[in-house]
Amino acid sequence: MVSEPKPVARRRKLRDALIHAAERTIEKEGLRGLKARELAYKVGCAVGAIYNVFTDLDDLIFAVNALTLEQLEKTLTLAGEKGADPQSGAIRALTHLALAYTDYAAANRPRWRALFDHRLAEGRDVPAWYQAQLARLFVYIEEPLRKLAPAMEPAARMQLARSLFSAVHGIVLIGLEEKLQSIPLSTVRAQVTFMVEAFAKGLARA
Amino acid sequence: MVSEPKPVARRRKLRDALIHAAERTIEKEGLRGLKARELAYKVGCAVGAIYNVFTDLDDLIFAVNALTLEQLEKTLTLAGEKGADPQSGAIRALTHLALAYTDYAAANRPRWRALFDHRLAEGRDVPAWYQAQLARLFVYIEEPLRKLAPAMEPAARMQLARSLFSAVHGIVLIGLEEKLQSIPLSTVRAQVTFMVEAFAKGLARA
Repeated sequence: MVSEPKPVARRRKLRDALIHAAERTIEKEGLRGLKARELAYKVGCAVGAIYNVFTDLDDLIFAVNALTLEQLEKTLTLAGEKGADPQSGAIRALTHLALAYTDYAAANRPRWRALFDHRLAEGRDVPAWYQAQLARLFVYIEEPLRKLAPAMEPAARMQLARSLFSAVHGIVLIGLEEKLQSIPLSTVRAQVTFMVEAFAKGLARA
Repeated sequence: MVSEPKPVARRRKLRDALIHAAERTIEKEGLRGLKARELAYKVGCAVGAIYNVFTDLDDLIFAVNALTLEQLEKTLTLAGEKGADPQSGAIRALTHLALAYTDYAAANRPRWRALFDHRLAEGRDVPAWYQAQLARLFVYIEEPLRKLAPAMEPAARMQLARSLFSAVHGIVLIGLEEKLQSIPLSTVRAQVTFMVEAFAKGLARA
């Protein structure tokens, strides 16, 4: 019984090494660069050993994306809520969240892209634990929305938080990937700020 | 001189056949399915003949995407502007445009995706004629924005039209590709409508 932890610790070590190697690969080459054979080579294990600790490469990608969501969450603070009236505090909070997202995406493009580029095989579902971690991030947006539209039903507010996120994501995505002209980050930030503020004002006065 | 038009007509015919074949391939398999060898087989020409009428496959993809932009433009009418005050007319016009975009994307997913998935080789620029065609689409958005914010500088309005488009695009993109749960088109339309209306009201009252 005392010897039990050894294989557990070894599995854990291999798991961590694979996640770490996958993070480096994604940062350098994006999701496309991720190959089981190369990962095994990098961590010094057999290709088959990967599947002792992960169901498949999708499972490994979810583990990396979960770490990305953790990094992103650390940048989401509800700053800007103090002082002034609750409404303008809530508008500032939303802008602050949107800019934190913009900045994270700009500073961590390949990791950020991997959150969206990960395509699952037909019939494969997003694991519940990952969905729960993702859902937690939307709560940051729901909170200021509640202050702006207190009469809104919780289900509608949840939906709205996702819409607002998607809208900001669209601006960041097209801004950072602009093919027609290179848009400086400061312009993307200004676009995000303008959009979120106009939206929030419209929502508050609706 | 009388015989000149023959090779011109032949080139034009080959060009049209290649565009047509590329459209069908993109609709079935997306951009990834596009291979010179298979296109040549489909239209019954030599692989090398493709490069007599197109500089490269990027050039062919721009030709297809231009047809997609044309299709999209046909759905963009400035309906809803009549009656009522100019402000609510402008809000209706923006919503109408956003929903036309949503519906086009939902009904033509692979063509629509090809507009954004087309990645150019390093150093290769988007042709000026394509940029001009794209720019024309934003004018539809600028017009109602001018009514909502008449004091805004034209350059800022142009930028805002692109931001608003990007925001709607984000909602449509995440809504139609939702991995976590399948969102019905009616919900995506409701999200787009709510976002655009709140934004437009906020803009008008800013």
